[in-house]
Amino acid sequence: MKKVYVGLVGFGTVGTGVAKILLNDAKTIAERTGTELILKKICDLDLSRARDIAPPGSMLTTRADDVIGDPEIGIVVELIGGIDAAKRVILNALRHGKDVVTANKALLATAGDELFQEAFSCGRSISFEASVGGAIPVISPLTSTFLSNRIHSIVGIVNGTCNYILTKMAEERAAYGTVLREAQKLGYAEADPALDVEGIDTAHKLAILARLGFACDFDYSQIYIEGISKIGIEDIVYAQQLGYVVKLLAIGSHHDGELELRVHPTLLSKGHPLATVREAFNAISFEGEAMGRIMLYGRGAGQMPTASAVTSDIIDVALGRAAITARFLRIFPTRTPRTKVKHIGEINTRYYLKFTALDKPGVLAHIAGVLGNHKISIASVIQQEEHRGEAVPVVMMTHLANEANLRNALGQIDKLPVVKKKTVFMRVLDGE
Amino acid sequence: MKKVYVGLVGFGTVGTGVAKILLNDAKTIAERTGTELILKKICDLDLSRARDIAPPGSMLTTRADDVIGDPEIGIVVELIGGIDAAKRVILNALRHGKDVVTANKALLATAGDELFQEAFSCGRSISFEASVGGAIPVISPLTSTFLSNRIHSIVGIVNGTCNYILTKMAEERAAYGTVLREAQKLGYAEADPALDVEGIDTAHKLAILARLGFACDFDYSQIYIEGISKIGIEDIVYAQQLGYVVKLLAIGSHHDGELELRVHPTLLSKGHPLATVREAFNAISFEGEAMGRIMLYGRGAGQMPTASAVTSDIIDVALGRAAITARFLRIFPTRTPRTKVKHIGEINTRYYLKFTALDKPGVLAHIAGVLGNHKISIASVIQQEEHRGEAVPVVMMTHLANEANLRNALGQIDKLPVVKKKTVFMRVLDGE
Repeated sequence: MKKVYVGLVGFGTVGTGVAKILLNDAKTIAERTGTELILKKICDLDLSRARDIAPPGSMLTTRADDVIGDPEIGIVVELIGGIDAAKRVILNALRHGKDVVTANKALLATAGDELFQEAFSCGRSISFEASVGGAIPVISPLTSTFLSNRIHSIVGIVNGTCNYILTKMAEERAAYGTVLREAQKLGYAEADPALDVEGIDTAHKLAILARLGFACDFDYSQIYIEGISKIGIEDIVYAQQLGYVVKLLAIGSHHDGELELRVHPTLLSKGHPLATVREAFNAISFEGEAMGRIMLYGRGAGQMPTASAVTSDIIDVALGRAAITARFLRIFPTRTPRTKVKHIGEINTRYYLKFTALDKPGVLAHIAGVLGNHKISIASVIQQEEHRGEAVPVVMMTHLANEANLRNALGQIDKLPVVKKKTVFMRVLDGE
Repeated sequence: MKKVYVGLVGFGTVGTGVAKILLNDAKTIAERTGTELILKKICDLDLSRARDIAPPGSMLTTRADDVIGDPEIGIVVELIGGIDAAKRVILNALRHGKDVVTANKALLATAGDELFQEAFSCGRSISFEASVGGAIPVISPLTSTFLSNRIHSIVGIVNGTCNYILTKMAEERAAYGTVLREAQKLGYAEADPALDVEGIDTAHKLAILARLGFACDFDYSQIYIEGISKIGIEDIVYAQQLGYVVKLLAIGSHHDGELELRVHPTLLSKGHPLATVREAFNAISFEGEAMGRIMLYGRGAGQMPTASAVTSDIIDVALGRAAITARFLRIFPTRTPRTKVKHIGEINTRYYLKFTALDKPGVLAHIAGVLGNHKISIASVIQQEEHRGEAVPVVMMTHLANEANLRNALGQIDKLPVVKKKTVFMRVLDGE
């Protein structure tokens, strides 16, 4: 039976999960794939930490070069995360003739072009199923089943932390700060949650999905990013009354040679298949020319789901399929056309607006007038019961409008003396 | 650029869709895959039928041998359906050194062992992404991403016709016959709907999913099959009141070296991700050791979704990945252990029961007594308002019970003079 030697760099949560699968399930995998995967070396700077698996001491090292320099090892799995050290490990491994498996979305999103260029020059592959959606097969369909389609749109809930927080806020009517602290206690959010709650992790994943799905390259920094840390519970409740849930979405679309790429809290209509995705689950919906809509759903994070995806990449490399994917497909950066990303001001969508204005005659008419002057028409209004003379919330849903126009209109409206707070606005995604 | 010649056998709905993609999108596919797919020959007995694509006459033939015998053609796509002729085409193509792509679930389910054996002997591949779930990537994850997992259960809504009918019955409170006729008018059901509504098509798909997912072989005829043609609207309404939807499910599980494989109408709890799958959509949920639950959702039928899956198989063969899958993986019949399928009497599940009994003192106690004697305990009861002396429906949900015990109990109960109709029972699937 074919033997393939694997080296792990990074023995944290996911690394431990991968080691568990490779050490405990090697027989099952060999039975199914006709290939023996042998975990040969594991590298981590901290080898003293308690882990629920104990590989033989001879397998362990603190020097990545011990893994990369081992001539028997064919596959190097990078699971240290972060940018600089991870990049060095991957480039070094490729130059030593190793195929690479990684879950590092931040690195792929921001330096993917350099990595894939090097892999291509070295005739090696980089596999990254675990970089988006944990155990959910996402990268694999994009590099196989979906190739027969022109993909028009990709919409995803790809950050479990944000989805957990938004689910709890909606279902328990609890404030953002309260839910975040609870999520941190349960391990659903990091001590420093910024990467997740500010939408950055979601943008990294959108960059990967969009490059593959639309077969385009673009500048990562052109993705519009807005997180969930400023969402008020009141707006979530209004959204519910209007038939929407609030989700942090990664939204990508490709029309007429231009891309729309944005990450922001979104009012998603309750009939949309993504609307029922609760807690830390992830789901990604793709619209393709021939295939219509496909939605893929599952656990987007966690030790074993992520380890499952990493291991499936190891198998794909070991079997030789990853080499073919890397050699033939022109859907990786540097082999696809550089494509314009629309500025957020150029997009057209529907909006949820919440004004806080004095309840005086003529105020609503004034606001509506400013919106009208900017070509924004109103689809529906919720005005709270009257408190004559007090500042009350007025909630509106608009028809399709241009974002630059909207921002100009809100700039004027927020300067009106009767408007007492900065107007809240969120974008809307309709559709079943 | 690499050129791969393709021959189509079967120029019906799906065949026309595949021809459309290959003729119209060849450039896009070549850009992405570095491979030129050239549709060279199309065979159909009826070449006069109106189709919304007109390939050059030189491409068309009525003789399958013209396709199979063409030395330039590397991939033969079988889309004629049915058993005997399709089998001859596939075996013949394999023996002529062609790789085969097919969407023929009936053939794969019932004669898969023979076909895969021949493919293996000939060193060729059979690809069949389109056989289950239309455009949804299902076969591809089972032969790649999920290989790092032991899969414990597979539950799917894989027949669009049945799901359309059940959705309409539930949402419009319409009777089975009425909805079936409407579905036939809209093209969602065949003139002879038996293959769909009697659950046979669902069983074919379950056989394919289970063989790959559980890496087991078994006798197709041991799958328990019950269709939807006898479901009363009243039972769908009771199910709704109890917090369930009625779906025709393909249910497979693998525990302790034994399989459970069954197709039947099921009360599915509303919190289950499959419960929101409406109309002609399909979805399949997999539970794996490491990955947890993954659900894949999309259009399970229709010209272009199915053609999309067929074309993705053609690409996979053209790139050489399908050959690797066929050579290495031991998850196809004849390369997996023959495994026992539990008889339906051996299963344990919860049940929905509807008795039609005279509303007289002691009747409920009598029924409950018979159930108790067979170790069936009652979880909840709905008894309609009283019509003293008339036959009224009594609905019960049981706790976990053994099916043989249940059938024995119902046999006794249905003989009671106070019981006026054969008791209705349906199996339940709980879980979020």
